[in-house]
Amino acid sequence: MSSRSTPLGEFDLIDRFFKTSADSLRTNADEAITLGIGDDCALIKPPVNEEIAITSDMLVEGRHFFVGADPAQLARKALAVNLSDLSAMGARPLGFTLAIALPAVDEAWLAGFSKGLFAIAKEYSCPLIGGDTTAGPLTISITAFGAIPTGKAIRRSGAKPGDDVWVSGTVGDARLSLAALRHEINLSSEDLQQVEHRMHQPMARVELGVQLRNVATAALDVSDGLLGDLGHILKQSHVDAEIALDKLPKSITLQKQDLAIQNQFAACGGDDYELCFTAPSSQRDKIQAISKSLNLPLTLIGKILPKRDSQAKVYLLDASGTLLSDLQAAPFLNSFDHFAS
Amino acid sequence: MSSRSTPLGEFDLIDRFFKTSADSLRTNADEAITLGIGDDCALIKPPVNEEIAITSDMLVEGRHFFVGADPAQLARKALAVNLSDLSAMGARPLGFTLAIALPAVDEAWLAGFSKGLFAIAKEYSCPLIGGDTTAGPLTISITAFGAIPTGKAIRRSGAKPGDDVWVSGTVGDARLSLAALRHEINLSSEDLQQVEHRMHQPMARVELGVQLRNVATAALDVSDGLLGDLGHILKQSHVDAEIALDKLPKSITLQKQDLAIQNQFAACGGDDYELCFTAPSSQRDKIQAISKSLNLPLTLIGKILPKRDSQAKVYLLDASGTLLSDLQAAPFLNSFDHFAS
Repeated sequence: MSSRSTPLGEFDLIDRFFKTSADSLRTNADEAITLGIGDDCALIKPPVNEEIAITSDMLVEGRHFFVGADPAQLARKALAVNLSDLSAMGARPLGFTLAIALPAVDEAWLAGFSKGLFAIAKEYSCPLIGGDTTAGPLTISITAFGAIPTGKAIRRSGAKPGDDVWVSGTVGDARLSLAALRHEINLSSEDLQQVEHRMHQPMARVELGVQLRNVATAALDVSDGLLGDLGHILKQSHVDAEIALDKLPKSITLQKQDLAIQNQFAACGGDDYELCFTAPSSQRDKIQAISKSLNLPLTLIGKILPKRDSQAKVYLLDASGTLLSDLQAAPFLNSFDHFAS
Repeated sequence: MSSRSTPLGEFDLIDRFFKTSADSLRTNADEAITLGIGDDCALIKPPVNEEIAITSDMLVEGRHFFVGADPAQLARKALAVNLSDLSAMGARPLGFTLAIALPAVDEAWLAGFSKGLFAIAKEYSCPLIGGDTTAGPLTISITAFGAIPTGKAIRRSGAKPGDDVWVSGTVGDARLSLAALRHEINLSSEDLQQVEHRMHQPMARVELGVQLRNVATAALDVSDGLLGDLGHILKQSHVDAEIALDKLPKSITLQKQDLAIQNQFAACGGDDYELCFTAPSSQRDKIQAISKSLNLPLTLIGKILPKRDSQAKVYLLDASGTLLSDLQAAPFLNSFDHFAS
């Protein structure tokens, strides 16, 4: 949180692109942020009876995004993936810190990054409250904070046999976009634009997470792929699951692909940032009502089962209910997703 | 906070070097940490009537530490600089998140890093509660959390004309170490060892910060250099200061150097992580008592003055009280420290 080692030698620039915008947002910020940028630390005073949810994600150039990526999109995604983690706990965003290493002070790049960052920060009422800037290979490390009534966080460990398994939105488009960008699959320019948007500009399902607080028994966000991520719930809840492969919600664009590709990308493609959650079947009406109120598809894709042996497993079923395969719940992702390098 | 993109492909290794050690620390951790590593987010429930102080620092290989730096020392320093920011607000450490990019999975390196990290985490009762690991150029981004009674944080903006200016410990040794490592100055091996320790293994003045809560009017940690950092207090408090150059506390090792070097390194050398703070003169007895109880020198080095013009200034005095120079409070650091590149 200091200006330690001042490697950019460009305090004014950083002030211009980060602090000023952050200050302007602070006027509308949550009262929980009692001190923002400019001191040794920021201060958060959570409301009485609320806990603070904390998540950190680091994005590295050439690893999580392409060299030359649009800085506004990049900023948006860097915050969105953290907001997605907050949403998976049912937390309401409070604010975030940004630690960023920059290879050079590039005014145009910083202007774009700042614009994208503060646009999403404003959209989700999640102000920048502190951070660090330094010279180095382009690396973006965000830590985001959310508030949630004490004891109401939706953990990964609460799934029970008999619970339904749900997923929000559609899955597989980000993976399809990656395949197209790698020239493994050809898409029309309209289709490409559609799926690229999913990869570069993910939504964080914050409002859904909040509404699931007293509904879901377990939840997480789909970042590494639906089945692999579901595996974390199964392991921590000590349960198995059966998933109906034909029920996975897919975009019209993905549905144009071969069925094998559809299934693979929907089941195992990463970067979708939808929520996968479990809930007792008694909650179905309520979940359909949430879906309607948010205008967001919520799809019932399977069921939680008692654990059969020491390793948590996912049983994949086809449309007729026939077992396609049983998979160790984690980490089977890479072995299943043959497109992954 | 996810395993997003799982680039290391080495979950077990990360579990072994981070999660297991973190879990073992959690048994003694503050009750404020209601959920640690392993879910989408960690959860902190601050005690009633306390605020959460938050600070983020990023360390980049080749910029903040030498290529090939000892991993245990590096881990220690990465957490210490964050704890130092907490101490400057008067906050008690609660926990931290670690986002780290690693060029490769090097078991020996990870073992060393993990050992150093959990040693200091234990020493300061500050458990690892979450984070992210990825492949990339070696970059360490820590966000640390502390607790402080509501309204008691020591901000940079509270210094008043007439207040004393104090600094803890000694200043300039880390800068002397850097000069020796750059072969600008020759030191005996004993002296080098002494000052290198200051650079590589800084202490965070956490207990001092806590004891200064109702004593200091403003505080910060000396990371960029005493005068430059003091400038932040002056700017935010809208005051000037006079500093007696001969009063700056210097180690015996630094006192062996030419007086010009002594003064320059003590006044402007970075990386010392001592606390610089202001307090009314009525607090002198109390501050001396704190110094005695912590066995830590606290030195009165100057006085806060009313601001004379639009730019906050430091007036540097020699032993006779003669004005040596008046310096714009910030950012004059680089122009004064001719050793800085």
